[in-house]
Amino acid sequence: MTCYVLLKKALIQLERLKLAFEEKSKEFDHVIKMGRTQLQDAVPIRLGQEFQAYATAVKRDMIRIEKVFEEIRYVNLGGTAIGTGINADVHYMKLIVPKLKEISGIDVIQASDLFDATQSLDSFVAVSGAVKACAVTLSKIASDLRLMSSGPRTGFGEINLPARQNGSSIMPGKVNPVIPEVVNQVAFHIIGNDLTITLAAEAGQLELNAFEPIVFYSLFQSLDTLTYAVETFVDHCITGITANEDRCRQLVENSVGVITALCPHIGYRDSAEIAKEAIRTGRPVRELIIKKGLLSPADVNIVLNPMNMTRPGIAKKSC
Amino acid sequence: MTCYVLLKKALIQLERLKLAFEEKSKEFDHVIKMGRTQLQDAVPIRLGQEFQAYATAVKRDMIRIEKVFEEIRYVNLGGTAIGTGINADVHYMKLIVPKLKEISGIDVIQASDLFDATQSLDSFVAVSGAVKACAVTLSKIASDLRLMSSGPRTGFGEINLPARQNGSSIMPGKVNPVIPEVVNQVAFHIIGNDLTITLAAEAGQLELNAFEPIVFYSLFQSLDTLTYAVETFVDHCITGITANEDRCRQLVENSVGVITALCPHIGYRDSAEIAKEAIRTGRPVRELIIKKGLLSPADVNIVLNPMNMTRPGIAKKSC
Amino acid sequence: MTCYVLLKKALIQLERLKLAFEEKSKEFDHVIKMGRTQLQDAVPIRLGQEFQAYATAVKRDMIRIEKVFEEIRYVNLGGTAIGTGINADVHYMKLIVPKLKEISGIDVIQASDLFDATQSLDSFVAVSGAVKACAVTLSKIASDLRLMSSGPRTGFGEINLPARQNGSSIMPGKVNPVIPEVVNQVAFHIIGNDLTITLAAEAGQLELNAFEPIVFYSLFQSLDTLTYAVETFVDHCITGITANEDRCRQLVENSVGVITALCPHIGYRDSAEIAKEAIRTGRPVRELIIKKGLLSPADVNIVLNPMNMTRPGIAKKSC
Amino acid sequence: MTCYVLLKKALIQLERLKLAFEEKSKEFDHVIKMGRTQLQDAVPIRLGQEFQAYATAVKRDMIRIEKVFEEIRYVNLGGTAIGTGINADVHYMKLIVPKLKEISGIDVIQASDLFDATQSLDSFVAVSGAVKACAVTLSKIASDLRLMSSGPRTGFGEINLPARQNGSSIMPGKVNPVIPEVVNQVAFHIIGNDLTITLAAEAGQLELNAFEPIVFYSLFQSLDTLTYAVETFVDHCITGITANEDRCRQLVENSVGVITALCPHIGYRDSAEIAKEAIRTGRPVRELIIKKGLLSPADVNIVLNPMNMTRPGIAKKSC
Repeated sequence: MTCYVLLKKALIQLERLKLAFEEKSKEFDHVIKMGRTQLQDAVPIRLGQEFQAYATAVKRDMIRIEKVFEEIRYVNLGGTAIGTGINADVHYMKLIVPKLKEISGIDVIQASDLFDATQSLDSFVAVSGAVKACAVTLSKIASDLRLMSSGPRTGFGEINLPARQNGSSIMPGKVNPVIPEVVNQVAFHIIGNDLTITLAAEAGQLELNAFEPIVFYSLFQSLDTLTYAVETFVDHCITGITANEDRCRQLVENSVGVITALCPHIGYRDSAEIAKEAIRTGRPVRELIIKKGLLSPADVNIVLNPMNMTRPGIAKKSC
Repeated sequence: MTCYVLLKKALIQLERLKLAFEEKSKEFDHVIKMGRTQLQDAVPIRLGQEFQAYATAVKRDMIRIEKVFEEIRYVNLGGTAIGTGINADVHYMKLIVPKLKEISGIDVIQASDLFDATQSLDSFVAVSGAVKACAVTLSKIASDLRLMSSGPRTGFGEINLPARQNGSSIMPGKVNPVIPEVVNQVAFHIIGNDLTITLAAEAGQLELNAFEPIVFYSLFQSLDTLTYAVETFVDHCITGITANEDRCRQLVENSVGVITALCPHIGYRDSAEIAKEAIRTGRPVRELIIKKGLLSPADVNIVLNPMNMTRPGIAKKSC
Repeated sequence: MTCYVLLKKALIQLERLKLAFEEKSKEFDHVIKMGRTQLQDAVPIRLGQEFQAYATAVKRDMIRIEKVFEEIRYVNLGGTAIGTGINADVHYMKLIVPKLKEISGIDVIQASDLFDATQSLDSFVAVSGAVKACAVTLSKIASDLRLMSSGPRTGFGEINLPARQNGSSIMPGKVNPVIPEVVNQVAFHIIGNDLTITLAAEAGQLELNAFEPIVFYSLFQSLDTLTYAVETFVDHCITGITANEDRCRQLVENSVGVITALCPHIGYRDSAEIAKEAIRTGRPVRELIIKKGLLSPADVNIVLNPMNMTRPGIAKKSC
Repeated sequence: MTCYVLLKKALIQLERLKLAFEEKSKEFDHVIKMGRTQLQDAVPIRLGQEFQAYATAVKRDMIRIEKVFEEIRYVNLGGTAIGTGINADVHYMKLIVPKLKEISGIDVIQASDLFDATQSLDSFVAVSGAVKACAVTLSKIASDLRLMSSGPRTGFGEINLPARQNGSSIMPGKVNPVIPEVVNQVAFHIIGNDLTITLAAEAGQLELNAFEPIVFYSLFQSLDTLTYAVETFVDHCITGITANEDRCRQLVENSVGVITALCPHIGYRDSAEIAKEAIRTGRPVRELIIKKGLLSPADVNIVLNPMNMTRPGIAKKSC
């Protein structure tokens, strides 16, 4: 019951988070920035695509959590001590769960195997597992936001998180990404709780798992903190994010990663040579290509148009 | 792909395990034994019900694993470097996944968000989570079998596991529950691997998770060892289990837990008094009730019939 | 500071636990019971030796915890923002830690590398690791006590834990091992917290670990719950444990494991044969040996004296 | 024994790592770079101080690992089946461990409590815990190196890791931090193994822990992979790291974090105002201070000298 209610509350906040990411995705659709793989310059991406990817991931977590309601529908009421239903009236055994469903409005049904339903806690491991997968997603996103907002001057500096408190008693003007840091910490907590739940479920013996208290303590705490963390993530961080468009564009223009778009035109080997020369000399890729006569200035403009690089199937046709 | 194949293999063995438990459930349907909660004598259960509960739990794990195929259907092929599909031919982008589906016979589809599909590994956390929940179930069952077969003389001694090897170089004739112990250990390993997978997924940054190697190493190992452990569990343990029917019956008859069935007839307080007296004096519950004139010998026979106690809704009507 | 105080409190309770086990060890020194390996009958042990082993394990945990004080002596006070000591007065930098030591009475010293001391949290991973190892010990002991007190009629029934509450609203007279179950659950919680602490420490970046809040929340909680769990373990469980001496002796006398003592006299092969025959026929080992003329009744009495079997170096000399 | 040998091998590589960091620390002693807390610009640090902090952390891990040899010195040889030493000759019991010490050259001693030594595996939890703490340190350092070498153009770009392989089949010239990524993954693996070891140790029952196989499999694997990961970390990454001194200096000069040094001279409020103005307008802190007449150009030169900011106790005296 409690689990059901807490999962519903978590879903409401996750839905808000998904919407917040989608709105930001539209807002930042035109912002070209550098994509990075393994923290190394890769190829351009639009900031809107970045946030859309976060919305997609959160959506998947929501679907996963919606599926685990199935895990907790089956109740062992009527089984009494160990599932035999000893000392329970036959009418009680048959009517208790339908009555509960009626009163609570929750779609519970009586487990077909009351012995199993009394002794097994794997369903709560599954519920916690879905919550943990969501925590993994949120922690990854929080870390990304901290990376993209690193700076203001000596980091990536692509986005700004809304300032929430003075960042330091010693360093004036410092603003820290405290909300994403909360999200990371809540994720660590949820992952730890998932382990506690796993241990308790595994340690069950014979007809009853005596360790339900710590399972529910940990699971409810995970759901509560998830809900509050997502709420504050939306209200005090995501909705206030702004983009440093100029900085994003400059980084793309100065990057070597755009060389990738030249591959189909001048080949991998020549592209790699130019990339190395660009890094060594600090000169722009565009300049080197034109100077070496590999492509005409007009073609370079088309091929190295970063916006095209972010549109699947567009760049290829245009040149 | 590999993940898909390994999951299918695991399911085949789990299906065999479920069937083995179901067969044992029928074979042991008539064996009355003592049920225990918190390792303390509770009320009677049939050994067949015990094994049916195991079959039910395994069935639930199978359903859970079948559901995670959905998690791994979505592939990012066509997204190339970071999801933009840069440098890929439009035809390639559109045709690669349908072709792959045709060739492999696996129902893969292209992810709608190729950015997300390239950077997020939460789906493998979910797959590992389902495998972990299954490991929890198996470990609990393995521990139960070790408990019920503890002995031969100074333990529960309710069932016998087939002997697999000399149990000791120093203690002649010793037979150890080596196969369930393997199952426990594989479960511990899978739970450890699940953590590794979780850590790697959480540590992903921006457009690509660089830690896929350890994710797949751990996940494939978990699936492999699960499959082999379940196979050996079926072939070298479950199918050869025998019941010590006499011992099981004796334990029930000597137990105090049967007092529970008296509750509806003589009340909780009197029942508790008799339970304490039985434990203190070592005399049978049956004898004390008749001596105290609480029930007639004939009624006692009906109420304390352990087989009735294991049939929901039967015991209540009969007296 | 808080960590220091909480560790001290935990040690006080662990010392009490060690003493409680030692007292029980003396009290039960004469109680012969069956030893079990892999839950199978092994060779006799004295109940006092069992409890002494628990005292020894707790002692080792205490030594381990005492050693981790060294981990938390080094403080980064004076390093200010990142370890450079920027903006701090030289006198402050030199005097702050000695002053703190004087005021607190705790033997803190300033870290020699203030950069490392500001950014690294591995010391708290080490502290939590020692606490976790202790939790593992306590959980193992709690599970052993639950096993040995399983029953009262259909389990091992070797010891009795003091009754703490009505065990069941449906099963009259039921007494559950609630205190050891608390200890198990606290151990699961501590193991989960250890993971959270590990995750937070690993996720630190560059000059400061921003995840200290969840590290301290989890660590303090682990220490608090450990302390209270051990306190209640001593006061409400260990000190009230009684032994069922007759039951313990009967189990040993009926066991087949005592055959081990015959090995040096009649060889492994013959011993194994007799073990199997004893299990098959249900007849005592003693009887079979005499009947087969393998040893004289007088020698059997010496060799199969279980008390001798529990005294290293004694049994061997006496025959 | 194996554990002893593997720990020694790991220590040899950790010593090499510490030395490699110390050498780099000297090499980079003069390189001023920006320090970052919570990924936000903080105050200047020397790159040599950064690497010295890594050496200090590794040193602490080495001390921790050296201490765990004490955990594995105590062997239960002579205790035979469960610690009683049943069937062992008194001479064997007394001589076996001294002989083993003589032959192996390893300082083993016989456990004083052979029962405890046969049933408890907490010492291996402690060994794994020390290895895990080391993995946490290494993973944090590996992540830092990946951050500082992010780029080459759109990241921090402060250091260069030696190129080890073509980084991408699609992005020419891409170089990825593959060696630190290996270190991260090995750390995730070790943390997972630590959990497996913990589970197996906790699950021990009565006189013997039957789960030693998975404990040793996991522990030996952790030690092996740690050793190889550290070896390749030293040989293929650390020793080849170079610094981008100009880039490092530019970042410091453009940063706002240097404002911190002004605090003692113009106060926190004014400093914070200037910080905000600098960020808003993009103008250097130095210029704003002089323009506002808060300090003379000469004083600004002294106060904002980044090298002084990295020397505890120096900056304060100079102005």
